[in-house]
Amino acid sequence: MTITGQNIIGFSRSSKGSTSFTSFNPVTNKALNERFFTATQDEINEAMNKASVAFKAFKKIPTSVRANFLREIAIQINACSETLTAQAILETGLPEVRIKGETGRTCGQLKLFADLIEEGSWVDARIENANPDRTPLPKPDLRSMLTPLGPVVVFGASNFPLAFSTAGADTASALAAGCPVVVKAHPSHPGTSEIVGQAILKAAQKNNLPDGIFSLLFDDGTDVAVELAKHKHTSAIGFTGSHSGGRALMDIAAARKKPIPVYAEMGSVNPVIMLPSAMDNKTEALANGLATSMTMGVGQFCTSPGLVFTVKSKSTDQFYKMLTDLLKEIPAATMLSHKICESYSNKLADTTTNESVTTLLNFTNKGGNDIAPSLLKTTGALFKENSELDGEIFGPVSLLIECESVEEIEQIVKSLDGQLTATIHGTEEDLSTYSELTDHLSQLAGRVIFNTFPTGVDVSHAMVHGGPYPASSDGRSTSVGTQAIFRFTRLVSYQGFPNNALPEELKNGNPLGIFRTVDSQRVQS
Amino acid sequence: MTITGQNIIGFSRSSKGSTSFTSFNPVTNKALNERFFTATQDEINEAMNKASVAFKAFKKIPTSVRANFLREIAIQINACSETLTAQAILETGLPEVRIKGETGRTCGQLKLFADLIEEGSWVDARIENANPDRTPLPKPDLRSMLTPLGPVVVFGASNFPLAFSTAGADTASALAAGCPVVVKAHPSHPGTSEIVGQAILKAAQKNNLPDGIFSLLFDDGTDVAVELAKHKHTSAIGFTGSHSGGRALMDIAAARKKPIPVYAEMGSVNPVIMLPSAMDNKTEALANGLATSMTMGVGQFCTSPGLVFTVKSKSTDQFYKMLTDLLKEIPAATMLSHKICESYSNKLADTTTNESVTTLLNFTNKGGNDIAPSLLKTTGALFKENSELDGEIFGPVSLLIECESVEEIEQIVKSLDGQLTATIHGTEEDLSTYSELTDHLSQLAGRVIFNTFPTGVDVSHAMVHGGPYPASSDGRSTSVGTQAIFRFTRLVSYQGFPNNALPEELKNGNPLGIFRTVDSQRVQS
Repeated sequence: MTITGQNIIGFSRSSKGSTSFTSFNPVTNKALNERFFTATQDEINEAMNKASVAFKAFKKIPTSVRANFLREIAIQINACSETLTAQAILETGLPEVRIKGETGRTCGQLKLFADLIEEGSWVDARIENANPDRTPLPKPDLRSMLTPLGPVVVFGASNFPLAFSTAGADTASALAAGCPVVVKAHPSHPGTSEIVGQAILKAAQKNNLPDGIFSLLFDDGTDVAVELAKHKHTSAIGFTGSHSGGRALMDIAAARKKPIPVYAEMGSVNPVIMLPSAMDNKTEALANGLATSMTMGVGQFCTSPGLVFTVKSKSTDQFYKMLTDLLKEIPAATMLSHKICESYSNKLADTTTNESVTTLLNFTNKGGNDIAPSLLKTTGALFKENSELDGEIFGPVSLLIECESVEEIEQIVKSLDGQLTATIHGTEEDLSTYSELTDHLSQLAGRVIFNTFPTGVDVSHAMVHGGPYPASSDGRSTSVGTQAIFRFTRLVSYQGFPNNALPEELKNGNPLGIFRTVDSQRVQS
Repeated sequence: MTITGQNIIGFSRSSKGSTSFTSFNPVTNKALNERFFTATQDEINEAMNKASVAFKAFKKIPTSVRANFLREIAIQINACSETLTAQAILETGLPEVRIKGETGRTCGQLKLFADLIEEGSWVDARIENANPDRTPLPKPDLRSMLTPLGPVVVFGASNFPLAFSTAGADTASALAAGCPVVVKAHPSHPGTSEIVGQAILKAAQKNNLPDGIFSLLFDDGTDVAVELAKHKHTSAIGFTGSHSGGRALMDIAAARKKPIPVYAEMGSVNPVIMLPSAMDNKTEALANGLATSMTMGVGQFCTSPGLVFTVKSKSTDQFYKMLTDLLKEIPAATMLSHKICESYSNKLADTTTNESVTTLLNFTNKGGNDIAPSLLKTTGALFKENSELDGEIFGPVSLLIECESVEEIEQIVKSLDGQLTATIHGTEEDLSTYSELTDHLSQLAGRVIFNTFPTGVDVSHAMVHGGPYPASSDGRSTSVGTQAIFRFTRLVSYQGFPNNALPEELKNGNPLGIFRTVDSQRVQS
């Protein structure tokens, strides 16, 4: 597979533009060889128009073909995994083991969605049979199900070049739902994106899918993003990235003549509460767990534990010491890009100069993009006075907040904004003793975690990776796990339709054998 | 039950404001006696603060109590049905049989939601059991379900003083989900709203529910609406009404520091397509059906058939004549308010003066609010040239669009905006002959109807009353039927939680006996 730098527009390649850009190797900070052509307005229109036309055909294709397509993408990604791994390492600086793991996760995710739609019950088919004798009014035959929403625009994330990028969770769930996808490649890993895009293309052609169900556009600025968000054929947006980027897309989408939903996952500080019982009995385990969690992926995970709440005690002092010692041993590693490294270094420097913050460990960057962990500390009282301390510092640092009591922790946690995750360490008894705090955590975050750490987002039917604003644009949804498919659907009901004209999912006799709700009863017959 | 005109703020009554307003009897166009106190900013804050506090307690109350509460509201509404009917007739001019029917519908709706939450499976509980031996990574114990979103603000509709108002579909679905509700009473029927509000209050007190799970505020302007939409404790909005009102709320909600979802049902023109086969074989039935549907409720239904597509033929001429004759016999009836009547009359006058439109029947209002049906006609070619003809005229009028062919109908229908409903009359064979047209209808509308008419929105598990923008703000959802509950929920997952600390729905052994998805399998055990 060769990297051409051309935009992928359905089954065609295109480089009409006069501007191009390169990606950078974050290890050397040097530009890579390949040039990527910035998509023009023409190319944007072409991709969206093709997607709109393809949608009509795509949504009528049997689900089994759609499932095969998703599985074939995984096969094609695996088939080029050597080239893909090499390119991803070059563009992201991530170690091989991580890229390979993420490739596995990406392929597993595609297969999970294939299984979901092949099983078929997810469409929530509901049948109300007619009853002409009902009083006061006869009851009509009414059948509803979830149907695909339309072309979806996906913005790849920098920190997961595979699992949240070109063929990542947004793309997989949108294609599974039956929506064509137009991806705006992340400019930090355009080569990786192109290789994956080509794999998707091959899988589409192999399954005789319509031209336009997938496109991939390049841009290292924001123009293409803005035009895609405004385009009349865009019916929803999936995004993983910064708050400013996500909110900008939300504002554009809301201001459209016809507003569209935006599913933006915008990161969070993922509060971790260590109750005294846990601190006293598992001091070392907590220090080990936090050191691992906060430095995983050089701290560049949306679920990285940014704020850690403790209660002042001897064990807590010991925990701080253990943690500092552990972090000292963790070598510097390359951050994803110079931009991220710079932003991290600046925010860290800002925070360490804050008089309310004690620096327990400070790794000062010497010019390259390699960063070792840092560790900051403050008190509950000072945290309450410094509202700026609850902001995310994307990288390997946590702020320890030493409180006078669990009540003070509760008070502070209640003042926090929406989060992707909220974690509590303690005993089972603690959960009932501090039930108000525990209850609040399920109000604060999309995922509440007991006695473990927030990093590691399992891809399953029960995962919720989302949370109240500003963690995500739409706290009702998840961007990971099978429930992510619901984001790209809408409800349709059919009244009085003859059996033959109904979608398979709603036909008499249940030809697909899916779980349905028939006259208020959940049945599989 | 006495009408006091005071705002209902939780279990208290309040009239702090210095301004008040009256409602009008649309039959006489005269002000009614009762004065209603416009809610002040203090009162708005009090209602929202109480709702926020009540939410914490309300979401922990057993579902059985919430179900009893909904059923008790129906009992309390029935207990005051005489006063309620009299007041609703005074304020809306609707006939007794309609008000009684709507009361039945409102109570039935409350009971349907009570049954839904008592059965309990709607929360979509999912359990993934831990598997420490999974490779490459151990699998955590992860359990997800839908939980209530938070305080919901509901704006009652003018055209359904009961079923889409104080205890209507939005309120019933929000309370069922576990969300406190603050209703902004529609100024056309504040007395009706207060009577129903008092019924809700009694039901809440009888079930020892927390103070603040329900409030009712008065205003005959837009200030209270704006402040409610901006309030920090508002987590979602339910609205049924005009496009301008709905869009204004959407814009306010999107511009908030923390944007919130708005579920606005904003009406539509509900295209009805009469294919030649139907026109030839059921001419009279179509004329009868359309005459009934377009004049039901004096045409003041969101699903009223505003645009009717036919193909030029002898039967079509006969149909026009029959329809005109039938409509001539339908007596004038009082519209819901002077404002609605005036707006209808103006829009109708505008359209009849359009040179592209032939007026088959024109009822000109003589100053009161009584209106008899009108009927307009144009051709496909002229309709295409006059983009303003696709707008809603809220009242008893349809625009017949005579086309040269089914292909021309298809072409025009594809240019229409999102609709609540789309209807097609023909044979079963037609649906496959014109499959592209039929497919498009399911893309255009939330509900697709075959061989009947769009008015009459059955309240069931399979109803979809929503549709792509501008029919509703969020085409993914429905405001009628049990699926309306999903609007007021969010996903939460619990990772590694001990069994005792989990919500009942997610506990081992399935104590509630609900349908769940356990390790990918749908089970009730």
